[in-house]
Amino acid sequence: MTIVFVTKCFLYYILKINKTDFMLPCSCHVLQESLLSSASGYSNYRGILNWCVVMLVLSNARLFLENIIKYGILVDPIQVVSLFLKDPYSWPAACLIIVSNVFILAALYTERRLAVGTITQMTGLIFHIFNLTSMLIFPSATVLIVTSMTPVGGVLSLGIYTVLFLKLYSYQDTNRWCREIRQAKAKRLTRSYSCPSVAQSNGSAGHTHVSYPGNLTHRDMYYFVFAPTLCYQLNFPRSPRIRIRFLMRRLFEMWMVPTIQNSMKPFQVPNHLIWLIFFYWFFHSSMNFVAELLQFGDREFYKDWWNSETVTYFWANWNIPVHKWCLRHFYKPMLRKGVNKFLAQTAVFLMSAFFHEYLVSVPLKMFRLWAFMGMMAQVPLAWFVGRFLNGNYGNAAVWMSLIIGQPVAVLMYVHDYYVIHYGSTT
Amino acid sequence: MTIVFVTKCFLYYILKINKTDFMLPCSCHVLQESLLSSASGYSNYRGILNWCVVMLVLSNARLFLENIIKYGILVDPIQVVSLFLKDPYSWPAACLIIVSNVFILAALYTERRLAVGTITQMTGLIFHIFNLTSMLIFPSATVLIVTSMTPVGGVLSLGIYTVLFLKLYSYQDTNRWCREIRQAKAKRLTRSYSCPSVAQSNGSAGHTHVSYPGNLTHRDMYYFVFAPTLCYQLNFPRSPRIRIRFLMRRLFEMWMVPTIQNSMKPFQVPNHLIWLIFFYWFFHSSMNFVAELLQFGDREFYKDWWNSETVTYFWANWNIPVHKWCLRHFYKPMLRKGVNKFLAQTAVFLMSAFFHEYLVSVPLKMFRLWAFMGMMAQVPLAWFVGRFLNGNYGNAAVWMSLIIGQPVAVLMYVHDYYVIHYGSTT
Repeated sequence: MTIVFVTKCFLYYILKINKTDFMLPCSCHVLQESLLSSASGYSNYRGILNWCVVMLVLSNARLFLENIIKYGILVDPIQVVSLFLKDPYSWPAACLIIVSNVFILAALYTERRLAVGTITQMTGLIFHIFNLTSMLIFPSATVLIVTSMTPVGGVLSLGIYTVLFLKLYSYQDTNRWCREIRQAKAKRLTRSYSCPSVAQSNGSAGHTHVSYPGNLTHRDMYYFVFAPTLCYQLNFPRSPRIRIRFLMRRLFEMWMVPTIQNSMKPFQVPNHLIWLIFFYWFFHSSMNFVAELLQFGDREFYKDWWNSETVTYFWANWNIPVHKWCLRHFYKPMLRKGVNKFLAQTAVFLMSAFFHEYLVSVPLKMFRLWAFMGMMAQVPLAWFVGRFLNGNYGNAAVWMSLIIGQPVAVLMYVHDYYVIHYGSTT
Repeated sequence: MTIVFVTKCFLYYILKINKTDFMLPCSCHVLQESLLSSASGYSNYRGILNWCVVMLVLSNARLFLENIIKYGILVDPIQVVSLFLKDPYSWPAACLIIVSNVFILAALYTERRLAVGTITQMTGLIFHIFNLTSMLIFPSATVLIVTSMTPVGGVLSLGIYTVLFLKLYSYQDTNRWCREIRQAKAKRLTRSYSCPSVAQSNGSAGHTHVSYPGNLTHRDMYYFVFAPTLCYQLNFPRSPRIRIRFLMRRLFEMWMVPTIQNSMKPFQVPNHLIWLIFFYWFFHSSMNFVAELLQFGDREFYKDWWNSETVTYFWANWNIPVHKWCLRHFYKPMLRKGVNKFLAQTAVFLMSAFFHEYLVSVPLKMFRLWAFMGMMAQVPLAWFVGRFLNGNYGNAAVWMSLIIGQPVAVLMYVHDYYVIHYGSTT
């Protein structure tokens, strides 16, 4: 060994070359694939995302500057207000949103009664069903009847009611599960069984954790109402502190992104791009902003849908709050009841199609079923892509369906809306 | 333990819920960051690359179709030929390329003489210097003198000569290193030292591996000339077999990509996009095609320059064959001679600037120094970006310099060329 070492040092001195050169004086190539070959397994394209942003900004720079010089950076407040209000003395959307508190409190008080046992399980269920059904019928009836309601105000208030509907459904479901566990526990305790797992979870519920009936407070309810999730749980994971810089960056984006979007003249930029920007604004900037404010820990609002190679993967990953809700409160309970997988999946799409249609048709006061059909068309599309395409081809197909499908559905409604309200398409 | 298990089974039976639901009946959230937050460390955006391709194809689909219907999918052969030939009876570029064999064989025969020792080290060096210098002067003189040489023919033949210049420089350097090691080994053998490391590498050189003087054959030389690398080494890593499907896919791309590029009318698509497509065509499709044909194993023709956060990283990663050559035959030898790092780096940029200018000025017969200045401007730019920007901002700055810098340099030459040849810019 020492001889080898001495030899190497000697050679190193003679040739005055560095170590790697000495080890392989004549070789500098190794067997390897190119990064863009699929065989390389490489997938870090963060830079491409930046390229897209730079290209978007540069290609619209002239337009941005023109608009900013002409109209200033501020969004015209009167124009924004006119989207929500026809008559400044009647604020139907705002009133409707304020009324939603009635339904929230009804759900809370029903749960309190159920917890102490002053009403039976069945009565509680009927109360909840009545409350939840009213939450869908009451706002849609209001939007259809009140003439001073604008389409934007209608979409906004119906959207908020739909979110609350999903939240309160999750609320009653989760609380029922908690009661069932408590009952099972009580039964076992009378039979003098010990229950280490539940006892342990109660034990670790030290200073902040609450256990079942303790969660039925106004504070807990309203935290859930404002939290960026649709699935209720007793102790949400909390982030340790509010990061001011993170909060400010998200706030800046929340203000900047719509400004940029406004600076692009409509229909010059493809509809698809507007959807992408909206996705970033809503699912990244806004939700993270709210979560940071509430110290809500679970920031998984979307997964890597941009890599989706099947339509199903896209729908399961672009909107995680809704997907999580569907899985927890609709798909899994159906499977437990013995419904077959394909049927359950179709039912989820059916429900999703119903809500898409509900959110578009009612505020526009047009029942055209384009949104419903668009959502239901995903089932055969998913089958086709899953059956015949995979890898990058599948991914390209998903992008194509987004780039072409969405604007077509939107244009259908825009076209029909213009025909109804202005008599002609021109 | 059994009690816990029985309890769980009992609960499972009562509640008819699946296992994860039982374990955490009321929790479905965990503490985590959003994927697009830089804190998540996520970087898989392969889908975004597909999005870019789909958007490029779709946004140009109408144009593509129009062009294909009008002109057919075939590139007009007469138009292509006219790029290379002014006079069909005089093929100056082709002749120039055929003559390059003289320089290749001169380098090989000089090395053979050096290996057997019929000429001294110094004589060999003088021969090589004379040979390499001629390789730069002879083609440029020919391009400048022969009037029937077109600019495209000039760029092509000068490009091939430059590549050969770099290859033959590497060839003589590597062979000299091999001789030096052989001499050192011989010296040690006379002193009765054993040399396990070198003996071992000779031992493993069984059926295919060659050792120093055995590599000086025509076959080995021409393999190196055609191989997609600029750095010579004795035993190149070889891929086990030619994958016909891979070969066909690259061939399809080699034909398809310029067809698509032709279908885009010039100046409607940004120059930068043409560079990106050229990059893919040359560094991925063509180089991989040649490598697959020659069973050349090292396919690292580029690294992840799209993620580069500094200008230096970009220049070190977008063109690996040239970068590898500069490092092995220019930068490292300079460092060994005690030159400081910054000076050596600037010298590399200076040499690169010289070759950029050489490849543009001589065929266009215009000495404007735009390419030279463009390359030298990279040094202060690299300093600025490295000093003031990092992360995604640095990446955006690199993209901006590519998107803006390149077209400006190209437009300079186009402008001047038009002014000289057509008298006015219109």
